[in-house]
Amino acid sequence: MSVSAARKFENFSEWFDGLLLKARIVDNRFPVKGFSVYMDNGAFMLDKLKELLEAELEKTGHKKMYFPLVTSEELFGKEAEHIKGFSKEVFVIDQGPGEQKLIIRPTSETIMYPMFRLWIRSHADLPLKVYQSVNVYRRETKATRALYRVREIPWNEAHTVHEAPSEAEKQIREALEIYQKVLKRLGIGYMTLKRPDFDKFAGAVYSIAFDAWNPDGKVNQVATIHNLGRNFAKAYEIEFEKKDGSRGIAYQTCYGFGFSRALAAVIAQHGDDRGLVLPPVIAPAQVVIIPIPFKGQEKQIQEYASKIKDMLS
Amino acid sequence: MSVSAARKFENFSEWFDGLLLKARIVDNRFPVKGFSVYMDNGAFMLDKLKELLEAELEKTGHKKMYFPLVTSEELFGKEAEHIKGFSKEVFVIDQGPGEQKLIIRPTSETIMYPMFRLWIRSHADLPLKVYQSVNVYRRETKATRALYRVREIPWNEAHTVHEAPSEAEKQIREALEIYQKVLKRLGIGYMTLKRPDFDKFAGAVYSIAFDAWNPDGKVNQVATIHNLGRNFAKAYEIEFEKKDGSRGIAYQTCYGFGFSRALAAVIAQHGDDRGLVLPPVIAPAQVVIIPIPFKGQEKQIQEYASKIKDMLS
Repeated sequence: MSVSAARKFENFSEWFDGLLLKARIVDNRFPVKGFSVYMDNGAFMLDKLKELLEAELEKTGHKKMYFPLVTSEELFGKEAEHIKGFSKEVFVIDQGPGEQKLIIRPTSETIMYPMFRLWIRSHADLPLKVYQSVNVYRRETKATRALYRVREIPWNEAHTVHEAPSEAEKQIREALEIYQKVLKRLGIGYMTLKRPDFDKFAGAVYSIAFDAWNPDGKVNQVATIHNLGRNFAKAYEIEFEKKDGSRGIAYQTCYGFGFSRALAAVIAQHGDDRGLVLPPVIAPAQVVIIPIPFKGQEKQIQEYASKIKDMLS
Repeated sequence: MSVSAARKFENFSEWFDGLLLKARIVDNRFPVKGFSVYMDNGAFMLDKLKELLEAELEKTGHKKMYFPLVTSEELFGKEAEHIKGFSKEVFVIDQGPGEQKLIIRPTSETIMYPMFRLWIRSHADLPLKVYQSVNVYRRETKATRALYRVREIPWNEAHTVHEAPSEAEKQIREALEIYQKVLKRLGIGYMTLKRPDFDKFAGAVYSIAFDAWNPDGKVNQVATIHNLGRNFAKAYEIEFEKKDGSRGIAYQTCYGFGFSRALAAVIAQHGDDRGLVLPPVIAPAQVVIIPIPFKGQEKQIQEYASKIKDMLS
């Protein structure tokens, strides 16, 4: 039985917002703008998305680490374009007089790269490929919407360091493949687009984005990949001894995958007038219908099983 | 071959701090007090501890959800004892003039309970058993030490709501069993002690703590369990319709398990002069030595295998 999916195209907000609470995915009534509660099904699916992506990152030699939530004003300010791009949307912790202000990560370049500087001594330490799945925080000034545009953003960010620009380029292609693989398993339709310069990541040489289609005609940017060149490596002094003994400045890439936006894309693209339709790989409930034939009633049992299937699908 | 474990008793700090970096567990050089970087082995073991505990929580009917990092001043201030206990050690986000200040969770009562109020209508909604594994943040004024006393604390917190005080008591016993089970699998030695009133959780009726022994003679509090009575339920108006139609105020418990402190206990209690000794259940590297007998050389091969075992253990 085919179910109509007209409602989400007619009034997306109404369809989507109602579904989130009813399906116990997100409760959006928490009284701080842009911060939502992920209920049991939402938390389950975010975890599954994380597992899917992390498995691909592990397979390709990325190492999981956990970095702090905060950075100092000094560390945050090192890369000029980066601070210009993010300074207006960061949350700042005021520790009172005499103590430094702390910046909550909008992304973790300024937290990870000072450590990379300590860890990287020679070409033998490269490539370095590190990732973490954490929340980042951005003071969105536009209207917020659960999963799509929030101030607490559950994502995965990977950061890599290389000897040569060609290796950074190769890494970009690996990242593209990883994200393509995960989005394919979720059945999400998207386009991969290189961003124009005015829209690239603050501090990047160039940025590539994964834009998923949305029933309201807008795009939903679920992931981005950035070639950082040596912009950050210069600012954070990520240098290494080359094979010939001379000193080099490293090349970097970073890429982020938004778990809540990917979940939004799954819900928005697959859902129908009855509500959620989920790819089994992240579904909290799995149903297998097993008809047990009984002599002389094979047909009725088969029909009944089909009826249940229609009810559920 | 038995390895001496004298060094950690002679100078614990030196032994412990050196080991953390060398074994790629924690890099403590991040330049913000109390915030550390969990390197690959540290991140791996924190994840394993989380899996161990979450499996037990799932088995006993706790539901995983994810709640926001922040609460508002208004929500934070509702329970008088709680705010008195925590107000000096919270991190505060200043959003500038005209916008509310945000309090970063030192623990999540003031974030979860306003939602519990919305979710609980009648006795049929009880018991409610919810958990999350997240970082909480406390501005420790004492000297910080990696894993033991940090400002960013990776932990699991579970919160439950019940109809009757007897059910809350039963829940306390379930929590005790869960934590005992996990600590047993890690081989951690500890004592379970009821805290004196001056040392109980801010807002609790009583608190029970799991104190692990430490080579320096101090205790390492790895977990706590609290009976909250109706203190928070009154402040956050967690009420429900009883079976007889009258209205009741709910009874609550909450309990927290510190992942970094449990990891500290594993390292401190099992380690020896050579460094890390890990229970296989959380070890990043597993080694199995398989001697393959070769005719006439059985003895040499067996001896060689034993030698490798001695080298590794």
